[in-house]
Amino acid sequence: MKEVLYGVEKVGRILTGHRPTGPRHLGHLVGTLNTWARLQDEYDCFFLVADLHVLTTDYTHPQRIRENILAVLLDWLGAGLDPERSTFVLQSAVPEHAELSVLLAMLVTVARAARNPTYKEQVRELGLSPSVGLLAYPVLQAADILVYKADAVPVGQDQLPHLEITREIARAFNRLYGTTFPEPQPILSAVPRLAGTDGRTMHTSYGNTIPLSADPEEIERKVLAMVTDPARVHPSDRGHPEVCLAFAYHHAFNAGAVAAVEERCRRGEIGCVPCKRGLAQVLAERLQPFRRAREEWQGREGELWELLHVGSRRARALARATLAEVRTKMGLVSWERRD
Amino acid sequence: MKEVLYGVEKVGRILTGHRPTGPRHLGHLVGTLNTWARLQDEYDCFFLVADLHVLTTDYTHPQRIRENILAVLLDWLGAGLDPERSTFVLQSAVPEHAELSVLLAMLVTVARAARNPTYKEQVRELGLSPSVGLLAYPVLQAADILVYKADAVPVGQDQLPHLEITREIARAFNRLYGTTFPEPQPILSAVPRLAGTDGRTMHTSYGNTIPLSADPEEIERKVLAMVTDPARVHPSDRGHPEVCLAFAYHHAFNAGAVAAVEERCRRGEIGCVPCKRGLAQVLAERLQPFRRAREEWQGREGELWELLHVGSRRARALARATLAEVRTKMGLVSWERRD
Repeated sequence: MKEVLYGVEKVGRILTGHRPTGPRHLGHLVGTLNTWARLQDEYDCFFLVADLHVLTTDYTHPQRIRENILAVLLDWLGAGLDPERSTFVLQSAVPEHAELSVLLAMLVTVARAARNPTYKEQVRELGLSPSVGLLAYPVLQAADILVYKADAVPVGQDQLPHLEITREIARAFNRLYGTTFPEPQPILSAVPRLAGTDGRTMHTSYGNTIPLSADPEEIERKVLAMVTDPARVHPSDRGHPEVCLAFAYHHAFNAGAVAAVEERCRRGEIGCVPCKRGLAQVLAERLQPFRRAREEWQGREGELWELLHVGSRRARALARATLAEVRTKMGLVSWERRD
Repeated sequence: MKEVLYGVEKVGRILTGHRPTGPRHLGHLVGTLNTWARLQDEYDCFFLVADLHVLTTDYTHPQRIRENILAVLLDWLGAGLDPERSTFVLQSAVPEHAELSVLLAMLVTVARAARNPTYKEQVRELGLSPSVGLLAYPVLQAADILVYKADAVPVGQDQLPHLEITREIARAFNRLYGTTFPEPQPILSAVPRLAGTDGRTMHTSYGNTIPLSADPEEIERKVLAMVTDPARVHPSDRGHPEVCLAFAYHHAFNAGAVAAVEERCRRGEIGCVPCKRGLAQVLAERLQPFRRAREEWQGREGELWELLHVGSRRARALARATLAEVRTKMGLVSWERRD
């Protein structure tokens, strides 16, 4: 499917997004944001702020949602996601997401939804009885994607099962009611998982992330605390970069110099402290756009909301067209719903 | 809660409705329609054509939904439900039902929803893996009721568990986010269950119902086929009304004459055939308004749809106000959603 949008020919439409759970961190940058920023050249991108999905795991902190949405927007802007070229959508501002999910829920068995690995993991982790909303998570996610008839979704390996449910739902709908939805293709990113600054899995709740908005002092403090090669006692000892967390970060963010860093470490030509200071400097530079975005938008909250409002309105026009088609095919009555 | 609507003071708001599965029959008349017609004097009534709920058990016959909606409307009008005094709502035309159900689904556990007796029964009867939509049925039903902040719901004994989930959801929401929803009270109808014309449970699929639109011939044919007291061979034999199906119908529809009917039967003063002809005549008279409604609206389909459209629009204004309140309380952003 080719279409011309904003004067540029695109190869298809993408839907992806983040749950507004707080500021983004380095893991999001290497995991998704870098890829998304690039995909804007080729694809008509819809970036979803998935606030309804936050409610599936936390509905008891209503006051957090607004500030978390703004934090996500600032980090998206810092990463080069461009609301002029792409569409920023607030999920709950386009009620067609919820409406479509209620319709699609008829086509998905409870057994199928419960087989979703993320559901199983969360049921285990939460240690409590899961909600109907949590079970229906992949159905709402399918609605997120299908309501814009997205052709592709950038995913990590671990999210493939989610996309597979969406593809099954699209196929089931097309079979029952005639071709309606493209089966969205995965755009697999081959990014290695980045560990947290303490070597454990990176997770905000572990306090082992570097937020994209971190200032040079915070970055240096966190980098200096990273565990390096424990066998190295003196700066002149020969190092083993493959066991060094700082080296993994060099690998991810300092690609141009990584060969030199490795060699100097193995030869014992550089101590861990200056090596990490160098890394901190590289990171501080890399994260400068995120700090700049915060400065630039400081005190302009209203404009940030407006940006999201405009995108959501643009998205809604598309979503309404899809719903009109889906409703008709499922036999539901459609009046012009201008009211 | 008292409010003045259409110039008449009402004691509260009621939400009730039917799934548009086909024309209504005598069971609906004694079970719900008679009560609903009366409740209009006291309550601000919202009568819901629950088309989304049809999809939970049958989403493969899209062409049936429209004609079934019209059939339900005609029977409602015949029963004296009055679109001038009450509000007729098409569920799918008010997307706030679906939107609210997605939000409320966060507050209901899968275990709780699966404990619903109707769900268990349908899983058994359908003999296949239930859909997420079927599991979420009581959540959508809660949204149907709560989106209008209904004070009361007329229910049969067997529907009490459904209403109980709604009340639990209302309580949970109020506890988390502050008082928002009334806990809807059941208005229990003490109507005895009417058996089908073959003595089995009355069900359209058994072919043992008398549709409200039946003409006198069809009524007589079905009544004459009813099983009466098997011990009676000659018209002068003494009868046992308590085992006679026709007598149960006399009881339900011929209250004024039921004592006389019973006496004449017990004394062997009337044969079964004339007794049943008498019943058929009473029924034909009772059902005249339903045939009249069909004649009156013959060829005026467009006006029927318009009637439902007007009601749905009126309902939607209320539903939007509720959603705006719910969204704000749950921390979601509300722009004026006029677009």
